[in-house]
This record gives sequence, structure tokens and C-alpha cells, in this order.
Amino acid sequence: MASLADLPIRDNLKGLSPYGAPQKEVRYALNVNENTHPIPEPVAHDIVEALASALLTINRYPDREFTTLRERLAAYVGHDLTADNMWAANGSNEILQQILQAFGGPGRSVLGFPPTYSMHSIIAAGTDTEWVAGERAAGYELTPELVTEWIEKTNPDVVFLCAPNNPTGTPVSLETIAAAYDATDGIVVVDEAYAEFAPEGQLSALSLLDGRERLIVSRTMSKAFAFAGARVGYLAADPAVTDALRLVRLPYHLSALTQAAAIAALDHTAEMLAMVDDIRRQRDRLLEELPQLGFTVWPSSANFVLFGGVHQPHALFEALLERDILIRDLGIPHHMRVTAGTEAETTAFLAALEQLGGASFGAE
Amino acid sequence: MASLADLPIRDNLKGLSPYGAPQKEVRYALNVNENTHPIPEPVAHDIVEALASALLTINRYPDREFTTLRERLAAYVGHDLTADNMWAANGSNEILQQILQAFGGPGRSVLGFPPTYSMHSIIAAGTDTEWVAGERAAGYELTPELVTEWIEKTNPDVVFLCAPNNPTGTPVSLETIAAAYDATDGIVVVDEAYAEFAPEGQLSALSLLDGRERLIVSRTMSKAFAFAGARVGYLAADPAVTDALRLVRLPYHLSALTQAAAIAALDHTAEMLAMVDDIRRQRDRLLEELPQLGFTVWPSSANFVLFGGVHQPHALFEALLERDILIRDLGIPHHMRVTAGTEAETTAFLAALEQLGGASFGAE
Repeated sequence: MASLADLPIRDNLKGLSPYGAPQKEVRYALNVNENTHPIPEPVAHDIVEALASALLTINRYPDREFTTLRERLAAYVGHDLTADNMWAANGSNEILQQILQAFGGPGRSVLGFPPTYSMHSIIAAGTDTEWVAGERAAGYELTPELVTEWIEKTNPDVVFLCAPNNPTGTPVSLETIAAAYDATDGIVVVDEAYAEFAPEGQLSALSLLDGRERLIVSRTMSKAFAFAGARVGYLAADPAVTDALRLVRLPYHLSALTQAAAIAALDHTAEMLAMVDDIRRQRDRLLEELPQLGFTVWPSSANFVLFGGVHQPHALFEALLERDILIRDLGIPHHMRVTAGTEAETTAFLAALEQLGGASFGAE
Repeated sequence: MASLADLPIRDNLKGLSPYGAPQKEVRYALNVNENTHPIPEPVAHDIVEALASALLTINRYPDREFTTLRERLAAYVGHDLTADNMWAANGSNEILQQILQAFGGPGRSVLGFPPTYSMHSIIAAGTDTEWVAGERAAGYELTPELVTEWIEKTNPDVVFLCAPNNPTGTPVSLETIAAAYDATDGIVVVDEAYAEFAPEGQLSALSLLDGRERLIVSRTMSKAFAFAGARVGYLAADPAVTDALRLVRLPYHLSALTQAAAIAALDHTAEMLAMVDDIRRQRDRLLEELPQLGFTVWPSSANFVLFGGVHQPHALFEALLERDILIRDLGIPHHMRVTAGTEAETTAFLAALEQLGGASFGAE
């Protein structure tokens, strides 16, 4: 039987392991920042109708320009944006990959600030873009001075800012994003996968797009829209950016089913987003109650919380798994990340932690 | 307003135009080799049920390993292959892109034999793989001697063989494929997008997989399964190849909707493929009747026919479009390509050609 070593695989892939958050069947899956609320039944009904209608012509290629979907996305994000500003792909991973295919790639580099979304550096490797790791200030913060310093020092072609940052939950101020933009001639990508979970009044980078043709705001329907299984990522940017992406996207990359499902979901934005407030409440509850169990927490504008003071993350992971609860060990020493689920899920998680002795679990 | 020239796009993309077969609303769309038969209604019904079921957990990420789909694909292709041999992606374009990300890329090259599927060289460019254009023998044929000579002369890392070839319809013998494999230490990809339309008894490269760990057979559900809108490409290869692709695929690249629809379609393989015989008959009819109108034709094992003897392809394209018929001008001098549609579509196309004077159309 052949093995990977028998194949003429690219040198930069040798010895790597695939991305792999564990896929386990558990009662409380709080490990990959999904929206744990199923979509509302009446909305599901309309989506099924839209899918059935799309099936009637499924023998034909889909609209390569997914014009209706781009119109609906523009209406959703507001800020006077139009379909010409919008682009979509199979998850925001593919959005980021297309951006690096157009503006990164061999001989170019992308600056990011770990700890951050693990796919950022993996997608850089997959597109042969050099990954440059900047450093964060205390509390995982990014400041205008810090990002400017790193950009001037490393001169990247693309800058990735994750706002709020995954896995730390840290928001990024508009001043920091504007400073990054001013410091570079390259592309600045603000990954706003979790933007809808931000506290009231926290502005999106969408408000900075006007007049900044090298700024890209990437989003996803996976989280706030509870649509992770449908794989719909999108971005807002100057129309010239979407023209650039047309050069690297695979034609017909968005299936007719994906387009139909996303359009139908966007037609029900209010119902689809109804759970966001509840999730924010559970996130705030985690921020409040984890310290009562002796853990430290970091401010989070997302649907998850990174908590510290864990003596033995791997042992805690296993102990929770025995209780049918899955959370994430990301390799940050003494830290773990948990998704804000439903009220019942959050209660189950906190109760299990308490049962295990809270932050004293695993102490020598 | 910004333009592409204002953006720091990669040098190798400057001045390019995006892939663009015209998207026009016409009565007879015979330009992109779709299966013009809608899927059977009872099958559509079962697919809708599968999609509705998938929607119940659409808030969760899909199965990253799409295990059930790989099992069904293995059962469909036969040849004692198992799920471990199978891989799928959003259209065979993504399959080919993943193959070049793993085995091609910067500093590597891929050998193809134009005229061939236009995406082959575009995907090479998108992955920064050098595209090496071999030459075909008379009648667009590939022989064992010819592919061996080109491989020895250009030493490519990957070889693309399109079997049958698009846009010429030319079959590729197993001897030629085996010779290409023996001549290289690299990867040999046989693109069998149109394999199901081959004449009875013409063997698939699947029969060569055993013992050849560098051989990949790529397929699609777009054509024979009338599933172009669903975007399901797949491949069969040694399990080590699928392990390599796991290093470059974006996690969760196949949506839960795509997986559900494809599985349901594969559960109805017989009904889905029922139209293949009819399409072959229309293809054979085109091969017979186009010469009666004064055109030359090339042998085709696919659902389309390349015909020559066209005095002015662009003028013929426009004249047919005025009659609500869309076919393809691929820039091959004095040639055009037409898809074998339903009996009624084929009749309409041939009647329009006759009305226009057959091959005398556009003569000085």
C-alpha cells in the first residue's frame, strides 16, 4: 500500500497534518463556535421551497455572477453598499483563499497577529504566501501604534485583522484598522466572522470602506445566521476588488443550491438573527461566571470566551468529554475556549466545571 | 472610482480577463455541454427530502470527511474501489485545483495537450503552476509514443489527459494513459468529465488504478447526472492521494446541502443516468447529419461535437443566436462546438443550420 511519502507532494506540505478540530458526536458541542440554535422552522420551510425550485434547473450551471445573492447581501450589510461591492464563496475560508490568490501568493507575504484564527496561516501556506506573525500587546490587544510598527517593520502585501479576534474574542478598534490601512500600500482584510455578536454600538469596519479601495471586510453566514452547514462566506469591498477576485475564482464556484438557500435565509434576516441576543447573553454569563469558578477571562465581542487559569487543559478537555461536553484546547498554555451555546448548554458546561472543582481542577 | 490598476494585484494576473462563456437566456442553450434534460421528478422529490433533513442541523458544520458521500461514489464507480479511494469537491474545477495545490504549484509544471478544457491552463495559472502545452497528432489524437515523447522532453510534475477530450471529443486509449504513467515520476490526472457518454466497451482509466498510486481519475456529476448546478466533482485514486488532498482542501469545503443532494442523487443512479443513452443518440446524429450539411466532424465520445468547415465562426454564432440557439466558438479556426441536447433541441439546431445554408454559410 502506498503512503504519502511515495507521492511527489510539494516540499512545503511534507510532514504537515490536515486541519482537524475533533469531530465527535456529543450532547454539548461547544468547540467550533457554531450557533447552537437550529434555524427557525418557518424559515427552514421557505428555504426548502427555494431549494426545490432550484432543483428544477439543477442540470444547468448556476449563475456565475450570483447577482441576486450579491444584491441581498448588500441590502443586509447596509452602509450604502450595492451588489457591485459584494462577493461570496463557499465559506469565508474560500473568501480568504481567493484574496490571497489575487493579492498574495509566491513572493508575497501576509501579516497576521497570533493567536488568531488558525486557518489564516494554513490558507497562507496553501497559497504559498509567506506568513508573518506579528505580536499582540497585553490582553491580546491591537493598537494603532502596534499594527503600524509591525507593518513598517515587515512590509507585508496583505494584512489580516480578525475583529473580534478568534480565539481570544478581542475587539479591534476602527482607529487600529484605519492606522493599518494608512501604514500599508497593500490589502487590509478585516475578518468579521463574528461581527454580529459585538456589543451594541461597536462599529463594523464596513463603516470604513468608503474611499478605501484596498480595504476588505470578510463575513460569514455560519455564525449569526446559524448557517455553518451551508458554507456561505462573503465580503464587502470596492468593486475593483471583486473584479480582481473574478480572475482567480473557479467559474460557477457557488452552487445553485447554495445561492438559493442563502437568498432565502437573507429574506428572513430578522428571524435568523433572533437568537443573536440570546447568545450574547450566554457569552456575558460565561464572562461573569467563569471568574466565580476561579478562571480568568478575556473581554469577548464574539460568541465564545477564551478563559485562562486552567492547570491542565488536556485533562480538563478529557474530563468534560466524559461528561458529553466538547470544548477547544488550542494549545495556548493554561487556556481553553468555549462557545456560548443555548442557556441549557451554558448551564451544563458551567455546572460540569463546578463539579470538577472549577479552576482548582488539575492543580498539583 | 477605483479600478483593477489601482490595486496591488499579482503580476501574473495583470491584464487577464476572467473565464467567461456567455451567460445568455436562450431557448436552445447548447454551449457549455450541460445535460439539457432536467432531473426526473421522483428523484427531485427525494433530493428535496434529503435537503430538508440536512437543514435541521444546518447550524452545525458539515461532515468534514463527507464519508457517506465517498461511500456512495465508490459504489457508483465500481472497480473494487472503497470510500478511501474517493474524494469530492465543488465541481471538478476544485478537484483539479486541489491536485495542483498538492502536487503542482510554484516551481512545478503541468503538461496538457491543447486544444483541451480551457480551465486546465487557467487553474494552472491560479495555482502558479507552469503550464506546458504539448501538441496533438492529426485528428487531435494522443498516442503512447507522443505522450511519452512530450513527457521525456518537458519533464512535468503533473500530466493532464482529458479523456474524452474537451472540446474535440477525442477518446484517449488506456495504452496512452499507461504509457504516460510509465514515462513520468509525477502525477497523471485523467479528466473523465464526460466518461459516461463513451461508446459501449470503451474502458475508463479507473481500470488502470490498481497498482498505480500516482494515477488520478477525475469525474463530475455535472454531465451524466444532470447536476451542473449542484457542483459535485470527484476523483478516484490511491488512498495516499486523498491524504495529500486533505492537506490543501479548505476544511468543510463541501456543504451539508451539497453532500445531501449528491447522496440522494447517487441513490437513484439508474434514473439519473437514463438520459445518457438518448444523449449519445443525439451525439451520433450530429456526427451523421453535420457532414450532410457540408461540415467536417471529429469522432466524439462525449456529449458534444466539434465540427469544422465553418467559414466564419463568429458570424455563424450570431446568426444562430438570432434564432435563439447558443453554441460555442472556442477560437479554433473554422471550428465550433455544439452540445448534444434533447432530440427537439438537436433538431432545432440542425434545421437552423440547414436554413442558413449549411457549410456554405459565410462563404465569400
